[in-house]
Amino acid sequence: METLLSSLITRLGTHNVLTAPEDILPYGFDGTAVLKQRPVAVVFARDAQEVSFVLKLARSHRVPVVTRGSGTGLSGGSVPVAGGLVLCLVKMDRILELDAKNLTLRAEAGVITQQVYDAADAAGLFYPPDPGSMKISTIGGNVAENSGGLRGLKYGVTRDYVIGMEVVLADGSLCWLGGKCVKDVAGYNLRDLFIGSEGTLGVVTQVLLKLLPKPAARQTLLATFAQMDAAAEAVSSIIAARIIPCTLEFLDRKTIHCVEDFAKVGLPRDAGAILLIETDGHPAAVADEAVRIEALCHAHGASSVRRATTAAEAAALATARRSAFSALARLRPTTILEDVTVPRSELAGMIRAVEGIALKHNLNIATFGHFGDGNLHPTILTDERDTAEMHRVELAFADIVDETLKRGGTLTGEHGVGLAKKAFLRRQLGDASYDLLRLVKRALDPDGLLNPGKIFDQAAR
Amino acid sequence: METLLSSLITRLGTHNVLTAPEDILPYGFDGTAVLKQRPVAVVFARDAQEVSFVLKLARSHRVPVVTRGSGTGLSGGSVPVAGGLVLCLVKMDRILELDAKNLTLRAEAGVITQQVYDAADAAGLFYPPDPGSMKISTIGGNVAENSGGLRGLKYGVTRDYVIGMEVVLADGSLCWLGGKCVKDVAGYNLRDLFIGSEGTLGVVTQVLLKLLPKPAARQTLLATFAQMDAAAEAVSSIIAARIIPCTLEFLDRKTIHCVEDFAKVGLPRDAGAILLIETDGHPAAVADEAVRIEALCHAHGASSVRRATTAAEAAALATARRSAFSALARLRPTTILEDVTVPRSELAGMIRAVEGIALKHNLNIATFGHFGDGNLHPTILTDERDTAEMHRVELAFADIVDETLKRGGTLTGEHGVGLAKKAFLRRQLGDASYDLLRLVKRALDPDGLLNPGKIFDQAAR
Repeated sequence: METLLSSLITRLGTHNVLTAPEDILPYGFDGTAVLKQRPVAVVFARDAQEVSFVLKLARSHRVPVVTRGSGTGLSGGSVPVAGGLVLCLVKMDRILELDAKNLTLRAEAGVITQQVYDAADAAGLFYPPDPGSMKISTIGGNVAENSGGLRGLKYGVTRDYVIGMEVVLADGSLCWLGGKCVKDVAGYNLRDLFIGSEGTLGVVTQVLLKLLPKPAARQTLLATFAQMDAAAEAVSSIIAARIIPCTLEFLDRKTIHCVEDFAKVGLPRDAGAILLIETDGHPAAVADEAVRIEALCHAHGASSVRRATTAAEAAALATARRSAFSALARLRPTTILEDVTVPRSELAGMIRAVEGIALKHNLNIATFGHFGDGNLHPTILTDERDTAEMHRVELAFADIVDETLKRGGTLTGEHGVGLAKKAFLRRQLGDASYDLLRLVKRALDPDGLLNPGKIFDQAAR
Repeated sequence: METLLSSLITRLGTHNVLTAPEDILPYGFDGTAVLKQRPVAVVFARDAQEVSFVLKLARSHRVPVVTRGSGTGLSGGSVPVAGGLVLCLVKMDRILELDAKNLTLRAEAGVITQQVYDAADAAGLFYPPDPGSMKISTIGGNVAENSGGLRGLKYGVTRDYVIGMEVVLADGSLCWLGGKCVKDVAGYNLRDLFIGSEGTLGVVTQVLLKLLPKPAARQTLLATFAQMDAAAEAVSSIIAARIIPCTLEFLDRKTIHCVEDFAKVGLPRDAGAILLIETDGHPAAVADEAVRIEALCHAHGASSVRRATTAAEAAALATARRSAFSALARLRPTTILEDVTVPRSELAGMIRAVEGIALKHNLNIATFGHFGDGNLHPTILTDERDTAEMHRVELAFADIVDETLKRGGTLTGEHGVGLAKKAFLRRQLGDASYDLLRLVKRALDPDGLLNPGKIFDQAAR
């Protein structure tokens, strides 16, 4: 290990190799606070060649490497392996090109997502994916986790905007996958294999992103319903009316109370559900759609529909949804944010099922999320020091998984498998698909050194 | 081989196992007419279990299997391997479900693409990918080749609409990949690995497709320019004006002449370029965009812009583009349709370069294609019996590839690598990416029996 460290220091410089316990501590966990580990060292690479150097060196010493950006992940995907290296890419933070003619932006993996959005915006363009962490998360981390956000229904997720990437493979070789061509069928699509692979197949060092023209207009609405079922029917009627809003978010009763306590945005405490709806595009289309959405909400029993008339008012309405997690996190010492997703038609039933599971296990669970995507975030408010309650949390989570899979859903819509969900993955995928994942892992990372133990336990060859 | 054939007949029935030379003949080639081979037998599977049976049996006899649908491919991807089996899926032709609430359609692989479109349309929904062959091609073939079409700029290609699939692996095991969840990050995205893999990694037996609400309005325009460069500038100005038309097609001077000779649609013979432009969406947005597109075309020197006022007139304008290939194919005995693609900003320069290459090699090359996608179809009008001219065709193609790669383009935008492009693939991808493709192939098809020799020659392990 001493040889490894001294080789790293020689190549990267002392300030890019952290080994002191107090320096390493912040890199021992990600946004999934209950999971912690201590790596041997944290190293910062400044370009793909340095990444390649680190992987080759780690391989020759058979030391695992866990790649990370800002560490905002919510499934333990970037929690280090004890005794391994953390490879941190936050110093690779340059936007390399904005090509307005081809609507693309090329950036190093460590660029903050918000900066990608801002650079596109300044050129009159639009990078749609907006994960909740976008002010601090890196684009490389978003790609590794295939992050979602609030605009998934209309605009899709990170995957839908990555058209090329540079990736360093387990053996240290550099690949470029994809490019600026809108259509390209030359060989297998390996780009999409790396997107969402959670650092287990290679290290993405550069991304080429597709941008869109910025929508000319936007309209935000906040609709209040006495019951979640009525909100669900309103959502179905909006889709049936051939309107695809860019945002279609919901808060349940418990979340509404917490948000109102926390942010005082004037939410009605007797509401059973709130929908935050945003439509964007051509001004005439937006105006027309907003009128129709308002009418459909009223037709399905909305007690009120507020329509923002200014950008500031729109931002205020969005605050109700954006502050949901922070509001909930204040209530108890430990907040466990789940991420199950079901087909849209199953969402209302799933929310009811989660309410039942909370009652059954005597737990405090509030739910909010992305109605249009069927992606709900049941948030368990608990205390990790209370062993008995934590046991009930585990039972409740198992019930939530049962209910999700029964409805044709997935364990994770946007947070990834990481450590948090891996025990359930085989059940969701079935043996043949699960074994196929591990086959691909063994082919691309034969020594099992890239973020080992995430997504699944490595099988012997 | 006799044992193999009798096992196939016992399980599938005599009428599903063709061995007579006259029965096999039509399965010896695809749309790439110069490539032909004779298989040992053609077998028709009626469900995934029969596909699994065929793969297991072929594996135990170490006989290659080439899967096909209607055989409309344009890169030799479904040309049989001499001495192997052709596995034809056209009898798996049922649409299994249309789920209007979740906007999905599930179909067997042998369903004709047009039927997918029609089924969606009848429900007020929209399946956008529209490859030229859609009236006869199968959806499974579209998935295997990741087919494009005329709506790629705004709506993407087949890949963008496949959210789930059933696939039979080389060992005969059945996997289901993906599902109805709009967001799903549970494990690697292997669905996208199979899309566009040209039958070399497994056999896709069922697909779950995403549908969109049908656009409420559509407007078709046909703009005529004296020079291709002016047309290119008009296209750039449309994108810069933040308009993304659903269709943005072009014909060059030679293609215009041929189409006019063939279809008599009233195209001006003195034009250097014609753009077919279609915008769709909300009626107000469409009307507004059509006016702006017309003005931008005039501002960039269009000699005329015709705007369709009825659906029939729109169809007549589209005929000019839709009949391009048929019109060109009449002129000489052999028509070789190329498929190179460059970043959109490089398209006009690429068309000029192809004109130069035609002059240099004394060949007749007409070019049409998808301007918005940078996907051009240089069409070489030749005669495969003329050895000297065919040699010049090869030289010209090599020049076209050089020019394409120099401009950051790809060998194939929508037709696939198959046999036709495989000699050039390593050059485009680079060694590391190319070797990675072969690594994945070896992992998923260790015996090399699934459509061997397509995309690349199989390397020894």
